[in-house]
Parts: sequence; structure tokens; C-alpha cells
Amino acid sequence: MSGPIDFYFDFASPYGYFAAGAIDALGARYQRTVNWHAIVLDANFQSLERIRIPSSVMRSDYIRRDVERVASFMKLPYKAPSSLGLHTELAARLFYWFNDRDPQQSRAFAQAVFKAYFVEDRNIAQLEVLQQLCCPLQMTPDDVASVAGDSATRARLKAEIDMAEARGVFGSPFFIVEGERFWGNDRLPLLERWLDAGTY
Amino acid sequence: MSGPIDFYFDFASPYGYFAAGAIDALGARYQRTVNWHAIVLDANFQSLERIRIPSSVMRSDYIRRDVERVASFMKLPYKAPSSLGLHTELAARLFYWFNDRDPQQSRAFAQAVFKAYFVEDRNIAQLEVLQQLCCPLQMTPDDVASVAGDSATRARLKAEIDMAEARGVFGSPFFIVEGERFWGNDRLPLLERWLDAGTY
Repeated sequence: MSGPIDFYFDFASPYGYFAAGAIDALGARYQRTVNWHAIVLDANFQSLERIRIPSSVMRSDYIRRDVERVASFMKLPYKAPSSLGLHTELAARLFYWFNDRDPQQSRAFAQAVFKAYFVEDRNIAQLEVLQQLCCPLQMTPDDVASVAGDSATRARLKAEIDMAEARGVFGSPFFIVEGERFWGNDRLPLLERWLDAGTY
Repeated sequence: MSGPIDFYFDFASPYGYFAAGAIDALGARYQRTVNWHAIVLDANFQSLERIRIPSSVMRSDYIRRDVERVASFMKLPYKAPSSLGLHTELAARLFYWFNDRDPQQSRAFAQAVFKAYFVEDRNIAQLEVLQQLCCPLQMTPDDVASVAGDSATRARLKAEIDMAEARGVFGSPFFIVEGERFWGNDRLPLLERWLDAGTY
């Protein structure tokens, strides 16, 4: 088998940001397509398996420290944002707007959003910030405002979240390849073993 | 610095079992003493950081699969037990009885308990099973029964749990070295980096 890797992330998840810095290189090593999917874990999402970690966890001293350590371990730039758990719905809608036109552009957008949040401490819940991030991607501020508020992009995101839920996604980052699910960037070594051996 | 590694585990935690199969070798590579501590996460334990994962998680399809994968990845024998979340208080009390006499014996006991639960599917909450496990360690069934019900061993375990909580332990496995906390066997690479570099 050599199926694609579906990579799910929430823009509010620092571990999702770290995974975004590693997953394409991993896919390339095994000649796999990587499909990126932005999801919003705190909206719409029913937890089928009741496995969701409470949001207070992400604010704990332990996690704050762990995130810094993992960034250092993975050699990725990171600066603790002043506000954790920002709402990521607008960013996710814009992600699919790019994605439906050019997946490479949506990756560039996603990396720009992650960098803005987890390196530059910018508020990615704000329309103005997203408008600035879209400028280098040839999307005008007016287009950003119109897409962010559009019912079609809202429905597009909801369909993605419903699909993710149906496939058993419940966290960020999350990976599915050939039906096998992996939760967390600390499962990347197990994902790699799967890609390599076709089993666990 | 070259402080000891404090290794906390709950006998009901399969990930604790996996960590028990790896931590002594890791400590030895860096000339560190490893102190083992049995804790009981579902008893007495106040979650200071409210970071505890609900017990339903451990029964989810995802975790069942993940545990099997991790066992395979770490090359450790594992057979899914028919009953998850067994109560581990008696086993933990006996652990300290051995530990106060000879830490090596308490390790042998701990490994026997983990093997009984996660390889042989035996009910380690039962006194009779614990009595059988203690036989090769020169502890008679009568002594096991008396220690398991003794108020002194109960108090000894409670003090360990209180201490663990005061040090910020909230899961299994959990490691503390030189004040730095690591939660989960997937943090062993970060722990190793700490041992190697003295920082993260």
C-alpha cells in the first residue's frame, strides 16, 4: 500500500504547529502525498470517544514547559503566545479557500498562520491579522473579509470537521494513513514505522 | 548536575509498564540512579493542574490500538488485559514493603506485577494473585496478607502519593530529574536529551 497521509491540525495547537514543520518531509521520504486539513476542535466537534483533553490542560505549567522543550527538540522557532486557545474558525475557513484553488498555497497560508501565532505572538483570531497574512498570497483584504464571512466557506469547513469526526479524529495533530490513526506529533516515529513496514 | 531519576508509575498503566522496561537502561547510560515509585492515580490523588485524562480514554478504541503499537515499537511483550483500570492499591503497598528492604526486590516485584497484568492477563487487584507473585521473592502468603492490610503500609503509600502530588506528578509514567518533569514514555527522548545536555 502507499496511501496518502491525512494531516489534521487546529491552528490553536502548538503541537499541530510542530507537526506542520515535520510532516511533509516525512511524507516525501516515503513518496506519500500529504493532505492538510484545518479543523476547529472547540467548535461543532462532538467527541465520539470522549477522549478530548480539557482546555485547562493547555494552560497548565507542565504543558507550557513541554511545548518549549518540544520546540527546542524539533529545532523549530517558538515564542509562547500571550493568549492560548484563540478561536481559529476564520483562519480555517481561509485555509480551505486556498486549498480548493492550490494546496501549495494553503500550506503556505497555514505556515504563515502558525508562525504568526507561535513565533510572532499575533492574534490570528482577528480579521486584520489574517488580511495581512494573505497579502503575500495575492489575496486582497476585501476578498479575505468576504471569504471569512461567506456561508459557502463556513459550510465547507463544517463538512471537513464532520468528515474528520466520522473518521475518528479527536485531537491536534492527528494523522490517518491507510485507515491507521496516529494522535500527537510524538507518534511520528510510529507513523514512520507504518509507512516503512505497512504495519505496526 | 547528575541527580537521580524519579520514576512514577501506576500498575494499571500500560504506558507505565512500557516505561518500566526502558528506564533503567536509560539511567545506566547516563550513570543515574533511578528511584521507582508506585502511585495510585485513582485514589487520594488531587489533580493540582486538572490535567488528568478521564478513565474512559483508557478504554477507547484508539488507545487500545495505540498501546499495542507502542508495545510492538518498544519490542515489549503485551497482551491486552480483559479488564482495564484495575485497582492497584494493594500492589502499590507491597511495592513499598519490598522497596524499604531492598529496592532491587521492589523492581523485581514491580516487573512481575506488570507482566502478570499486561502479558498474562491476571487480576493484580486480587490478594491471591499478589501472593503468588510474591512467592519467588521469599515473601510468604501470610506475610503478603498481613502487609496488604497493615495500616503502616497504607500510610507509607499515602505519604508517597502526597509527595508525588506535591512534586507535580499527575500521570503515569512520570519522570522527574533535577526538578524537570516529563510525562509519558513518549517523552523519554526529551528526558534523554536532558540527561545528556543538562538542559532542554
